[in-house]
Amino acid sequence: MSKGVTPQSSDHSKWYTDVITKAQLADYGPVKGTMVIRPYGYSIWESIKNEFDMQFKKTGHVNAYFPLFIPKSFLAKEAEHVDGFAKECAVVTHSKLKLDENKNLVVDPNSKLEEEIIVRPTSETVIWSMYKKWINSYRDLPILINQWANVVRWEMRTRLFLRTSEFLWQEGHTAHASEEEAKAEALKMLDVYQDVVQNMMAIPVLTGYKSNSEKFAGAIDTYCIEAMMGDKKALQAGTSHYLGQNFAKAFDVKFQNDKNEEEYVYATSWGVSTRLIGALIMVHGDNKGLRLPPKVAPIQVVIVPIFRSDEDKNKILNYIDSLTKGFDTLNVRYLFDDRTTVSPGFKFNEWEMKGVPIRLEVGSRDIESNNIIYSRRDTNVKNEISINGAHQYLNHVLEKIQNSLFEQAQKFLNDNTYKINSYDDFKSIVKKGGFVECGWDGTDETEAAIKKDTKATIRCISFDQEHKDLQCIYSGSIAKYKVIFSRAY
Amino acid sequence: MSKGVTPQSSDHSKWYTDVITKAQLADYGPVKGTMVIRPYGYSIWESIKNEFDMQFKKTGHVNAYFPLFIPKSFLAKEAEHVDGFAKECAVVTHSKLKLDENKNLVVDPNSKLEEEIIVRPTSETVIWSMYKKWINSYRDLPILINQWANVVRWEMRTRLFLRTSEFLWQEGHTAHASEEEAKAEALKMLDVYQDVVQNMMAIPVLTGYKSNSEKFAGAIDTYCIEAMMGDKKALQAGTSHYLGQNFAKAFDVKFQNDKNEEEYVYATSWGVSTRLIGALIMVHGDNKGLRLPPKVAPIQVVIVPIFRSDEDKNKILNYIDSLTKGFDTLNVRYLFDDRTTVSPGFKFNEWEMKGVPIRLEVGSRDIESNNIIYSRRDTNVKNEISINGAHQYLNHVLEKIQNSLFEQAQKFLNDNTYKINSYDDFKSIVKKGGFVECGWDGTDETEAAIKKDTKATIRCISFDQEHKDLQCIYSGSIAKYKVIFSRAY
Repeated sequence: MSKGVTPQSSDHSKWYTDVITKAQLADYGPVKGTMVIRPYGYSIWESIKNEFDMQFKKTGHVNAYFPLFIPKSFLAKEAEHVDGFAKECAVVTHSKLKLDENKNLVVDPNSKLEEEIIVRPTSETVIWSMYKKWINSYRDLPILINQWANVVRWEMRTRLFLRTSEFLWQEGHTAHASEEEAKAEALKMLDVYQDVVQNMMAIPVLTGYKSNSEKFAGAIDTYCIEAMMGDKKALQAGTSHYLGQNFAKAFDVKFQNDKNEEEYVYATSWGVSTRLIGALIMVHGDNKGLRLPPKVAPIQVVIVPIFRSDEDKNKILNYIDSLTKGFDTLNVRYLFDDRTTVSPGFKFNEWEMKGVPIRLEVGSRDIESNNIIYSRRDTNVKNEISINGAHQYLNHVLEKIQNSLFEQAQKFLNDNTYKINSYDDFKSIVKKGGFVECGWDGTDETEAAIKKDTKATIRCISFDQEHKDLQCIYSGSIAKYKVIFSRAY
Repeated sequence: MSKGVTPQSSDHSKWYTDVITKAQLADYGPVKGTMVIRPYGYSIWESIKNEFDMQFKKTGHVNAYFPLFIPKSFLAKEAEHVDGFAKECAVVTHSKLKLDENKNLVVDPNSKLEEEIIVRPTSETVIWSMYKKWINSYRDLPILINQWANVVRWEMRTRLFLRTSEFLWQEGHTAHASEEEAKAEALKMLDVYQDVVQNMMAIPVLTGYKSNSEKFAGAIDTYCIEAMMGDKKALQAGTSHYLGQNFAKAFDVKFQNDKNEEEYVYATSWGVSTRLIGALIMVHGDNKGLRLPPKVAPIQVVIVPIFRSDEDKNKILNYIDSLTKGFDTLNVRYLFDDRTTVSPGFKFNEWEMKGVPIRLEVGSRDIESNNIIYSRRDTNVKNEISINGAHQYLNHVLEKIQNSLFEQAQKFLNDNTYKINSYDDFKSIVKKGGFVECGWDGTDETEAAIKKDTKATIRCISFDQEHKDLQCIYSGSIAKYKVIFSRAY
């Protein structure tokens, strides 16, 4: 903990991994591509998860749980879906191990399965096979189900939180009686995503929809929230899909509508995952480590006592008694770090690395002056305030930190987003990092050529398509869409 | 929903499945042995989970997440562990599918893994491989980690909630500097289990520890809570294991103690799972369906309005306005069931099937008399009470129902537990159902002979071992232990 992290400017990727390791957010699991989410990282996930869960329930959704295992044949039922997921999946082929004659543990060949099983990469297929059983009439609709689960997509170039074989997420899967209602649902959930990511995680996002080449395998439309990381690359932070009748047709899910006609059901699905923690690190982190928005911080205030004896410590405890009681009434999450095995300086570094929004220091001198010293992690500014009413003052500071982190990130996003008309400018911006807003002729060819040329992809097609005389940045013909290009994670 | 369930007395197993299906708790998944937990069942799981999670945190534990995938070789590291789990596990052997020349989706043989991967049946091995990295000194101890996860044990004779290939659970995995501390931890968590299962789920349990043949593969001691189902069979409802240094030795996890000596770390693990929902059904259910203790009921009070027009309905809504506001302040979970597609009688049956503790009926006649009719699911008793202050009265009734369900179950357990000295009596009781408290000589042979003879197993060895002149029920020699025998799920 005493050693710092690699500076962001010298190697952003190494900085990222250093922060995760030193702040004890996560670790590599024994099977290549897997990740262990350590308690500090998991606690952040719990905050995020609880907030989303509350919002999902508020908007009428219920949770359920569908199986991890999917019959291989299901994956083939939706044509685009199989292309998207068959190439990177975990295949279960046997159900037993045994000891061979040399006492080695081997797969029992007699336990070979008749049909191979896929570990879910996403649950559309298994869920729609169940919806077939549950949906008969318009009275059974809508179904508004969410599940919190682990999913697996084979991945060898591991990057903690961003690219791992297994990750945690939520996946909403809804069924509706009309296209209109399903589309409205997909957009409503995009709003929920934007709201939680911006207001709780203090991460500003752009919204829009994906081009054909970037959308979900099996969707009609994919809506997304996109965020800018500290290295000016984009990260897709959440997606919501209007699936039309694709999965209903693949699994033959029809309902009797209120005119007594049979019709295929309309669907959406939507998900956010533990990759949001990767965004949190890269949007707010600095060369001292994490900077956590108070709303997701497992510890919002750490109190570091400066003491040499138990007597000193008890005096301090007594001195801050009304402060901590005040924190309790305000639901401020605080920790009194009275470890004697490490120095105060070590503690300062550790809690800075872990991104705790406010650090308090208290020693005998402070008791005499009736003050307390607080230090803001977002600005590094240190101040002395009276202990009287400090809990209310500091609670207010927490709100300020929450807002200031959002504003800093919003300014960074604005400062690094460019409206561009020339392809030369496009290339130089993409190279140095940033988002480019420009025209696109709407063809797959142009999109592919730009990607090949610059590694930039269309992050989103803006919902606002007010544009006159806009030209395609690449072909020069009349732009069909106003879009955002960037390199991305 | 209009059709009832098979009576318990005619076929308890069919009754159980009928209740699950008709109350929409769960359904069979497409892969044999898998289960879908439907929203109503999952909501019960969420209540149980939240209560356990709160208790775990109160007792100093934190949550984390470890990978689903375990290298095959890990399973072989602890000798007993491999025996316990190798025979029923899901083995991942490949990482890709592809379309063959006939456009069939097949496993890509080029994607064969170097080492096969096991889908976790339990996480001791993967967690102790990480503890090896995290533990160096006594300062790193204790580690008190829990995880909420899915696990897989191959299972072909499916029984929803009780025996499925995949199930949801929590698994605590703690590491300690001394045997004493670890043993105390295992017993502390058994207390937490007993507390939540009895006080929240209203299920009385016996506590004790397991015989060698019944304990966890890799444990020194397995402590358990055992409950009696409605058919007088036992169900193991939760286990807590003192693992000694077995996993620390298997994964070479040593720490420097405070005397600067190297020592292997001491361990516990403990778990409860969705099988608790099976217990809930079988302990409280009756021939009308579920009976849910209020503390776990997703809906505690259902209000069924009797109306013919929107005007009637609005009058009723107006009439119960202060009631529902009162429920809100008391955090009573209620539902106003104003569906017009089904009759009130249909609703009565449906909510009885779903075990809602209190049903209210309100029609114009009740408005005139300023009353409301409530019906208790636990007793079927129907009463009329004044609408004034009804929310407080009914909240009190909910408490009474919670207690009465526990007392009924406790009486049933007591009435069907027998202290027996003769093996003939033993056999007749085991046959008709019930728990037998008797002496056991402590030998594996006697235990095995009784199991072969009667299908009864030792459910637990009582913690209280005050016994004089007690004889072994089978061999007649001096009993080493006082134990509980029963047939079990």
